Amino acid sequence: MSVTAAEGFSAAGVTAGLKSTGRDLALVVNSGPSRQVAAVFTTNSFAAAPVLWSRQVISDGRADAVILNSGGANACTGPEGFQDTHATAERLAASLNAAGSDVSATDVAVCSTGLIGERLNMEALLPGVDEAVAALSPEAESGIAAAEAIMTTDSHYKVASLSAERFTVGGMAKGAGMLAPGMATMLAVITTDAVISQTDLDAALREAVRLSFNRADSDGCMSTNDTVIAMASGAHPEAENTRVDLEDFQQALTTVCRDLARQLIDDAEGAAHTIEVQTINAPTEEDAETVSRAVARSNLFKTAIFGQDPNWGRILSAVGTTEVEFDPNRVDVAVNGVWICLGGGIGEDRSLVDLSERTVRVLINLNAGESEATILTNDLTHDYVHENSAYST
Amino acid sequence: MSVTAAEGFSAAGVTAGLKSTGRDLALVVNSGPSRQVAAVFTTNSFAAAPVLWSRQVISDGRADAVILNSGGANACTGPEGFQDTHATAERLAASLNAAGSDVSATDVAVCSTGLIGERLNMEALLPGVDEAVAALSPEAESGIAAAEAIMTTDSHYKVASLSAERFTVGGMAKGAGMLAPGMATMLAVITTDAVISQTDLDAALREAVRLSFNRADSDGCMSTNDTVIAMASGAHPEAENTRVDLEDFQQALTTVCRDLARQLIDDAEGAAHTIEVQTINAPTEEDAETVSRAVARSNLFKTAIFGQDPNWGRILSAVGTTEVEFDPNRVDVAVNGVWICLGGGIGEDRSLVDLSERTVRVLINLNAGESEATILTNDLTHDYVHENSAYST
Repeated sequence: MSVTAAEGFSAAGVTAGLKSTGRDLALVVNSGPSRQVAAVFTTNSFAAAPVLWSRQVISDGRADAVILNSGGANACTGPEGFQDTHATAERLAASLNAAGSDVSATDVAVCSTGLIGERLNMEALLPGVDEAVAALSPEAESGIAAAEAIMTTDSHYKVASLSAERFTVGGMAKGAGMLAPGMATMLAVITTDAVISQTDLDAALREAVRLSFNRADSDGCMSTNDTVIAMASGAHPEAENTRVDLEDFQQALTTVCRDLARQLIDDAEGAAHTIEVQTINAPTEEDAETVSRAVARSNLFKTAIFGQDPNWGRILSAVGTTEVEFDPNRVDVAVNGVWICLGGGIGEDRSLVDLSERTVRVLINLNAGESEATILTNDLTHDYVHENSAYST
Repeated sequence: MSVTAAEGFSAAGVTAGLKSTGRDLALVVNSGPSRQVAAVFTTNSFAAAPVLWSRQVISDGRADAVILNSGGANACTGPEGFQDTHATAERLAASLNAAGSDVSATDVAVCSTGLIGERLNMEALLPGVDEAVAALSPEAESGIAAAEAIMTTDSHYKVASLSAERFTVGGMAKGAGMLAPGMATMLAVITTDAVISQTDLDAALREAVRLSFNRADSDGCMSTNDTVIAMASGAHPEAENTRVDLEDFQQALTTVCRDLARQLIDDAEGAAHTIEVQTINAPTEEDAETVSRAVARSNLFKTAIFGQDPNWGRILSAVGTTEVEFDPNRVDVAVNGVWICLGGGIGEDRSLVDLSERTVRVLINLNAGESEATILTNDLTHDYVHENSAYST
């Protein structure tokens, strides 16, 4: 079900005491035979210390383990914060090696999530690392424990997996607010036992992220810590040291990432609706994504959906702010299957639209091409305002 | 104080019955001797019928009058909506000419504001036009009545004026939600009795709008109806048919537009705070504006301010999403004068920040150049969600 679904991986989730309740330190170890790694990081200029560190770690295409903590983002913490991340990797390598491994700290990726601008409690974290190593196991419950340990305001852990004939892909993710473009505020670890080159793993991950996490846009806010890491062990019993079919692998990886991205949006802070904004018949896929994202980012649209108001005027207003080329008089919009806007004007009776269910489907037909894209987003609610106005104080 | 402050203008605000309560039809007439006009319109692809009409009207640089209604945006209403706008202009020209003028309908600009996607009630509107003509007067109270008639969810009317030796600039505006970039959802009419060429009026208006309405960004949503119209009569008694000093005029016009833009943000729907996000020492003015706007558009930042939480991590996160070049380790942030972030990390004690007042000043020092810009915005509140989730239903 999770990061331990694929062969070659063990995991742990323990309570180091970085936050007031629950597990807060997760560990995923790749015992090989391969130790390919690829990752996509936040593009935020204020990338957190663990992001700066992990970028270096994965630059040679190898990682043996990733250690992740909640209870602190270790972002905007200066050189001291970077030293904390470095010390975490060193401690993990030492602890793994004391248990018989041969791991270099420079092959340990680190992820952190929580409040920005505060140092981590290293006195709690470092002993927790040893505890996590002691708890390592390839069992399903260890994967679940790891998924629990990375939660912040998530209401439940998020895992996914998919098995094919000669490989399995598994993963876990966290992220509940600051779900954004160019990536949600999120951490995700994907594991696979496929036999695959690092270059192919990297390309497949980028494509999967483009179509999944990068199309989840809860509140338009990008974080300093976003990281998706994929590790490949090549340990599948049927793999026979033969490279995986790339098309099959891409499909499985994208499916797992989409599954996790959907779970993030379904559990976004304070949201009452999960909204699929699909734009069809756009000039290009990028155009379709641009139009869907413009709607997904409109606070007026998002509050309307919260109020169960199929306000197509606000949808068109948002579509019209883009520079995508289309004829305004040929745009149709359906909400939950009712075409309430036809030809850029009044369509079917809006009272036919039922917005009482959690999922809302907005379909925008630009009639200007053949491309499509969907952005997943949420409504803007009182609970969102409440949770985010009271979070850090 | 308002559009009648300048010589040569008369105005009226009447109740035509387009909405359930209060005045809903405003009229401003320029009786010359000059009838220069310039305007800036929404760039939204779904520009409303009155925008399409008024663009044509002002294309020859002359307008005799502008008629504005609340109680309906006449947007996304197709060819019929355009005919309604045309009929309004025709009726005004006929009514003015019956009273002794010589006005062409093609010199009558039209503005509408209210709900998108519904036809105007022309049976109420057209008789209202005659009533407005009958009520025309250069008195101050007529300018106020006009300013009242364009209100939608505004809690009060917005007017401003400024007098110099040889000219006066006056204006009125409306706009309370959908306050956006590339213009707030707003209507504004500016009048002046300066002697000025149409080309100079146009250039001055564009510069003034760039520095005022375009830097008011309440909720990032751009409307289908945004219009700022400036009319010049050349009627100032001391003008002596000599062209105005352009620098003096620009300064006055920008001041009046900034005054009105500030009033819009101070009265934005559901806002509890007016936030000035100023970025200084940026590479270029455009960069400074980009950084300030990124912060102004962050829902996480906006909810934090609502919660009186000086959350500088959310400010840096937003700054970091831009592509502006700066050194993250040299960025300082002050909130209401307290430098809570220094060198991209923890600065002065955040508990020193007092956010109990309406106005919040965020100062971002990029230490990367010499340019600055300020964006005015609001916090994101329960009242915003409430007003916008219940508006149209």
